[in-house]
Amino acid sequence: MSANPRVLVVGAGAIGAFYGAILHRGGAQVEVVSRSEAEEINERGFRIHSQDLGDLSFQPAVVYSRVEDITQPPDFVLLSVKVLDDLDRAALIRPAVGPETAIVLVENGVDIERPIKEAFPGNPLVSGLAFVAVSRTGRAQAEHKAYGRLVIGEYPAGTGAACERFAGLLEAGGVSCPVSDDLVTERWRKAVWNAAFNPVSVLAGGATTTTMLDAPGGEAFMVTLMDEVCAVAAAAGHPLDPELPRKAIPGTRKMPPYHNSMALDFLNGRPMEVEAILGNVVRAARENGVAVPHLDSVYAATKMAQQRIAVEGPAA
Amino acid sequence: MSANPRVLVVGAGAIGAFYGAILHRGGAQVEVVSRSEAEEINERGFRIHSQDLGDLSFQPAVVYSRVEDITQPPDFVLLSVKVLDDLDRAALIRPAVGPETAIVLVENGVDIERPIKEAFPGNPLVSGLAFVAVSRTGRAQAEHKAYGRLVIGEYPAGTGAACERFAGLLEAGGVSCPVSDDLVTERWRKAVWNAAFNPVSVLAGGATTTTMLDAPGGEAFMVTLMDEVCAVAAAAGHPLDPELPRKAIPGTRKMPPYHNSMALDFLNGRPMEVEAILGNVVRAARENGVAVPHLDSVYAATKMAQQRIAVEGPAA
Repeated sequence: MSANPRVLVVGAGAIGAFYGAILHRGGAQVEVVSRSEAEEINERGFRIHSQDLGDLSFQPAVVYSRVEDITQPPDFVLLSVKVLDDLDRAALIRPAVGPETAIVLVENGVDIERPIKEAFPGNPLVSGLAFVAVSRTGRAQAEHKAYGRLVIGEYPAGTGAACERFAGLLEAGGVSCPVSDDLVTERWRKAVWNAAFNPVSVLAGGATTTTMLDAPGGEAFMVTLMDEVCAVAAAAGHPLDPELPRKAIPGTRKMPPYHNSMALDFLNGRPMEVEAILGNVVRAARENGVAVPHLDSVYAATKMAQQRIAVEGPAA
Repeated sequence: MSANPRVLVVGAGAIGAFYGAILHRGGAQVEVVSRSEAEEINERGFRIHSQDLGDLSFQPAVVYSRVEDITQPPDFVLLSVKVLDDLDRAALIRPAVGPETAIVLVENGVDIERPIKEAFPGNPLVSGLAFVAVSRTGRAQAEHKAYGRLVIGEYPAGTGAACERFAGLLEAGGVSCPVSDDLVTERWRKAVWNAAFNPVSVLAGGATTTTMLDAPGGEAFMVTLMDEVCAVAAAAGHPLDPELPRKAIPGTRKMPPYHNSMALDFLNGRPMEVEAILGNVVRAARENGVAVPHLDSVYAATKMAQQRIAVEGPAA
């Protein structure tokens, strides 16, 4: 690998643009694939404002409109597309993955690494969990509001040279990037909140967390759901602090009222990451013989909400 | 009682106006209470169009803007207001209820008779279940689309002179009015569908039944919920055909895609009858020691949707 590693960002939404900008600041040669915004990005780069980090706007070294146009495999492929049923993510990145390319996933959910690992068994696979508030504000444009930490680790476990090198780039760019040797457990820990709060916010009509917790019985219901996720995590070999669900309530209460990503997708009639965030948890429950009647209910109703926006259009 | 029985309709929405019109056609002297539309009704009566029955428009004998203005108790009080937590229905009708007045409830849900029976233990209480598609189309205006049958019975069980007399008026007016000696069981039978489909249509973002059943796993989820309602009904002393939930699916499939009343309330940001339709089922489950984790989930999430429209406004 060269001293200036090449990172190809596939999925240049708010998350991809933000981490692309940080990697650029950290010394990487950042290239991006954007089917729909290649022209804007070529002309004026990404415009990214950050309340903490100032102006993060940058011009990628190369902008591709199709992954097929890449001739020289990069050192890293950073994949930050939504995880949706009808998108074959392995097929999407295949033209860019060389024998030495490390694949970095910055995506939500649990068990989302499996199809990528199966497709590229010989490549380092770095799984990443973003703790960041960043929103798209227009074409090739994003606003970074808070946080930024990316926790990474090798999938299915451990760490390695690819993790260390990638973390070094992000840290040099000004963002904390702790390396975990048990990233899958970290995913389950994040899923405790996400698998409960994201889909239920949809069922509540695209509600803020504050609205959800203020409803009669709201806190108890969210704890029940989070307890079920903890039980699945434990059965799947990733035991967590059993008090995590109860501790999550005051932490969530401290956040300002906001619509999470799935609630926003629902309100705007966009596809939601139901399977990555909740469906895979329910499937892990089945595989491990754990009864999750409350998660089952939320899952079934959320698929109806998804059908609703597909057939009847946006709710907002 | 006179040969021309006096019926006071309290709650002159679409349902109250429709049955008021039928009672008027059947020979009753129909009076109405309307706080907000007394003037229109006085001036031009109710305008009601029916696809099956033709023009049902009629002029009530008296229009009151407050129940307190009634000086002579009627033979029947027909109560057809929404059953909501913050409305004391017994207090609402108390000024109109004399020692001989029969109270007729045309309202959704289970266990909704209890507070009325407690407030008026000496009066005949007729509980009614409407199978009718009628919508409000404007002030003092409604459109009757289909069906019309009202099943009635004395609460808590049996029949009596008040039932027979009221049924005679409706039948004379052109609508079928079977008298059941076990109306509470009939309520539970209707609740099997209502307690499942109404709230879940809200969770699905205000979806049609077609959308709900077309979602992956949709039919199985609705059957699971309806099975739980059946188990509660049986434990509460009202056993139903255990195949009812499975039979309900093809029946529901035959209906055109439509938004039920709770879905419409949700989409328009109006209060929903969550407690009458689902909360009372969940409470009956608790009282009888029946586990209903799927109904519990739907109930908790529906209360969040209710909080959502109260705090964040209509979803549509």
